[in-house]
Amino acid sequence: MPVLLSPEQAPTLADLLDTANTIGLPVQLPDQAVAGNLHIAGLGALSSAGSSEISFLSNPRLTSLLAQTQAGAVVLDAKAWETYQAQQSDQPGFVPVICQAPYALYAMLAQWFDAHRIRQLPQGIHDTASIDPSAKLDHDVSVGPYAIVEADATIGAGTRVGAHSIVGQGASLGRDCLLHARVTLYHGVHVGDRAILHSGVVLGADGFGFAPDPRHTDQVWVKIAQLGDVRIGNDVEIGANTTVDRGALESTVLGDGVKLDNQIMIAHNVTVGEHTAMAACVGVAGSTAIGARCTVGGAAMLSGHLTVGDDVHISGGTAITSDISSPGRYTGVYPFAEHRQWKKNTAVVAQLSALRRRLRQLEKQLAGSSPQD
Amino acid sequence: MPVLLSPEQAPTLADLLDTANTIGLPVQLPDQAVAGNLHIAGLGALSSAGSSEISFLSNPRLTSLLAQTQAGAVVLDAKAWETYQAQQSDQPGFVPVICQAPYALYAMLAQWFDAHRIRQLPQGIHDTASIDPSAKLDHDVSVGPYAIVEADATIGAGTRVGAHSIVGQGASLGRDCLLHARVTLYHGVHVGDRAILHSGVVLGADGFGFAPDPRHTDQVWVKIAQLGDVRIGNDVEIGANTTVDRGALESTVLGDGVKLDNQIMIAHNVTVGEHTAMAACVGVAGSTAIGARCTVGGAAMLSGHLTVGDDVHISGGTAITSDISSPGRYTGVYPFAEHRQWKKNTAVVAQLSALRRRLRQLEKQLAGSSPQD
Amino acid sequence: MPVLLSPEQAPTLADLLDTANTIGLPVQLPDQAVAGNLHIAGLGALSSAGSSEISFLSNPRLTSLLAQTQAGAVVLDAKAWETYQAQQSDQPGFVPVICQAPYALYAMLAQWFDAHRIRQLPQGIHDTASIDPSAKLDHDVSVGPYAIVEADATIGAGTRVGAHSIVGQGASLGRDCLLHARVTLYHGVHVGDRAILHSGVVLGADGFGFAPDPRHTDQVWVKIAQLGDVRIGNDVEIGANTTVDRGALESTVLGDGVKLDNQIMIAHNVTVGEHTAMAACVGVAGSTAIGARCTVGGAAMLSGHLTVGDDVHISGGTAITSDISSPGRYTGVYPFAEHRQWKKNTAVVAQLSALRRRLRQLEKQLAGSSPQD
Repeated sequence: MPVLLSPEQAPTLADLLDTANTIGLPVQLPDQAVAGNLHIAGLGALSSAGSSEISFLSNPRLTSLLAQTQAGAVVLDAKAWETYQAQQSDQPGFVPVICQAPYALYAMLAQWFDAHRIRQLPQGIHDTASIDPSAKLDHDVSVGPYAIVEADATIGAGTRVGAHSIVGQGASLGRDCLLHARVTLYHGVHVGDRAILHSGVVLGADGFGFAPDPRHTDQVWVKIAQLGDVRIGNDVEIGANTTVDRGALESTVLGDGVKLDNQIMIAHNVTVGEHTAMAACVGVAGSTAIGARCTVGGAAMLSGHLTVGDDVHISGGTAITSDISSPGRYTGVYPFAEHRQWKKNTAVVAQLSALRRRLRQLEKQLAGSSPQD
Repeated sequence: MPVLLSPEQAPTLADLLDTANTIGLPVQLPDQAVAGNLHIAGLGALSSAGSSEISFLSNPRLTSLLAQTQAGAVVLDAKAWETYQAQQSDQPGFVPVICQAPYALYAMLAQWFDAHRIRQLPQGIHDTASIDPSAKLDHDVSVGPYAIVEADATIGAGTRVGAHSIVGQGASLGRDCLLHARVTLYHGVHVGDRAILHSGVVLGADGFGFAPDPRHTDQVWVKIAQLGDVRIGNDVEIGANTTVDRGALESTVLGDGVKLDNQIMIAHNVTVGEHTAMAACVGVAGSTAIGARCTVGGAAMLSGHLTVGDDVHISGGTAITSDISSPGRYTGVYPFAEHRQWKKNTAVVAQLSALRRRLRQLEKQLAGSSPQD
Repeated sequence: MPVLLSPEQAPTLADLLDTANTIGLPVQLPDQAVAGNLHIAGLGALSSAGSSEISFLSNPRLTSLLAQTQAGAVVLDAKAWETYQAQQSDQPGFVPVICQAPYALYAMLAQWFDAHRIRQLPQGIHDTASIDPSAKLDHDVSVGPYAIVEADATIGAGTRVGAHSIVGQGASLGRDCLLHARVTLYHGVHVGDRAILHSGVVLGADGFGFAPDPRHTDQVWVKIAQLGDVRIGNDVEIGANTTVDRGALESTVLGDGVKLDNQIMIAHNVTVGEHTAMAACVGVAGSTAIGARCTVGGAAMLSGHLTVGDDVHISGGTAITSDISSPGRYTGVYPFAEHRQWKKNTAVVAQLSALRRRLRQLEKQLAGSSPQD
């Protein structure tokens, strides 16, 4: 367990739940007295948490782990608690914390412990930060070592800009954003409130646009300067080394609550609807519009100029090459196999059209030679 | 429209065409007088451009948008203009700018507006730039804050090195290059004239080379130091977070006019021919040679040690696993479907070889029981 | 040949083999006298090495190149040398260096030349490096310009931290590591001895973890703070722009001798066994465990929560979607074809289930109308 507070820092279970549960999830503590005495120094998995740690059960299939856990307290829902009690005659070794959304309460507890471990964060403006006099920084802004804030940039209250990060000319960041080290915002990129941007993120590089040069009969490219921008809503998180290109003439847009994992590529003029989440290594080609509340599995790719509706779930590794209008789950993954087996089956793929023709031929022939003849 | 010049800055349409059309595309202005009076402050899409903006029509299927556009001027070809005039009895609301290559003229206009918007570019050598005394910088070189130019590096006239960029020992950049913030050139990387390198680009990291260590019966790796370099021609653009590894003993080569989008991986000893363009997330494995004037769609991958000829077009998401000698378009994408449908069909893929055998069996049987018997 | 020492620097062949062969591979020099006189200034391929360079033959299919090579010396195994002598009546133009592991000896020679070319490496602590007073640096540590070492970080003897790199709070690096420019270690990341980390590497960014917010009926995400860390063994190399996320509660682990190429994504809680090597652009989703001595081809992807055993070899471009327990090679790549051909065959994929049904139908019918009836 990497995070373990010292005994003096460890809150009681009651205090922890009071302060960590900022979204007000209903929580029941069957034994209030114990909760006021038990000090919780950390958060761990059921299989590894110790007696001064809190754990959680969100997957009903793991209920059997409750009997062995050494955790001091466990977040679980009423049904799991009843099941456990029905099966165990002894008193449990842990204090039950009953909540109908144990996974969400775990998320709240993890945020609390993350905020309370001692960590060096940029505090104030570092001596080596380079900030243009025309930039506007609201109160409580921190800018780390060697970070650069260019002319006419604006940064909202409480936002922290990590070491080596660059906020380009005229770019804007909302309130309470966290830019980790080494994030690049090109000029004129706009980011809303509470964004979390990880190391290596590049927002607003040029979209990939070239016109054939008519002076050459061969293919020679003329650059189409990218005059658009990037507009990112509130509560967006973007993972390490992910890139979002600026629009050609208009904006590339990520809606409120969008979550992007690492090494994702969002091309120019793409729009992503609210609360859509994408796993790592996804690529979205230019001008494609993705709806709200979608999920895109890792390494999926979407071709350009497509429209994907709301509540669409794309499996990892799938290539989406045409519009999707109905909600649902979509998949297109070639099945793997032991190499020799794969080779035998895959050789037939190149003959599928011929195979179908042969089958039709047989069907016709058989219709002609059927017993009814 | 993110770029809109102030009235004082906005040129007349005639002046704009004079100065922006640097490649000398033939342009006709049916109404010269108007062109001398109309001031153009920006460039926009047909659907969103206003009366002080110029727009363009390059896709004939969008000709119908001309009737509604609010743009002050529109670049279009003679045929589109004739079609429009034949259908509309009224005078158009826009000034026609007739050019047989409207997309290329749009590219020129976009470059002009990009150059004329006020943007902070590194001007001269920033105080915090770290430049080795042995480095040779030609006239009008700019080096941004915290950028590093190592020993024996050479930088051509007019080249701008962005903030936090690193030009490694003995590396060279030609004339009029633009390195955005946070580009890394390892030692001995050579880049020609007019390159545009985006944030997060890494040129010249070690190729992936290891020999099995014969002292172990198990697989243990010994590093093969990568002694080669990277050689990049003129007029090359490389997108954000793209990596080009140095050769093992020789060079990794990108020819003149090559355009690489974001998050592309070019492995050691690869050669890419002139004017070949690759969309984002492409991977090219070691020692593969790609010809001139190819295009590679997003997320395609090429295996190592292949030869792909000139004028080959590879579709997005395709895995190229053997040589391609003939020009043409090549594709290998597994079709996506609604998940349950995919599952049903994909289960058969693992039986394709058996299915073919059964079909042959039926064909034989039927040949034996045919009416002619 | 990018590396060519000056005549004064070039060692004799005998001295070169003495000093470069640090792993003690058995080597035979049929002509000791010559080896003491021949000076070797560089290392090259058989087809391009000159008379003052050493080359190697490791692939028996290239034995024919020996007759033409201009190399001054060639590393080859006894069998290749015998074959060559049997076919050639003349004295060879090169000095033979006989070794049963020519590729491993080439690796050693390449390391020697790499270490002996003049290159600027961070020497000592650069003036502009920002090092927290609480950080512990062992002897002979170098920290480059603008690099940052945060509070409580520890760096082992002989380790070099490149320009612009960041060693986060409480992170640790072992002995003799080489961090190239622009590497980010988040807080609490642990790296063993002799690591090589390339430009753009990000270790310890947050894993991708979100819980549905139960206050909304629609999909809205609550961040699960990532409290775990990253633990990397000894002798690990990680390529440019590769990312390894920190664990949610526990550690993300790379074993000793793991080699990762560029642009790889290792998600939270993944474990990779000793001496496993992955080519570029691979993605491994959360909590997947990969065994020892595996190889993963470029652009392969592994789904989350899988277990892959030891000695498994996954072909490039393959999506692994279920556990693999037996050693062997596994593949799942859709075959590419000329576009029109692909289109014809791929259309049948969507009908495979129906096709199988029709085939069964025919088989039944034919069984009913067989001659035996």
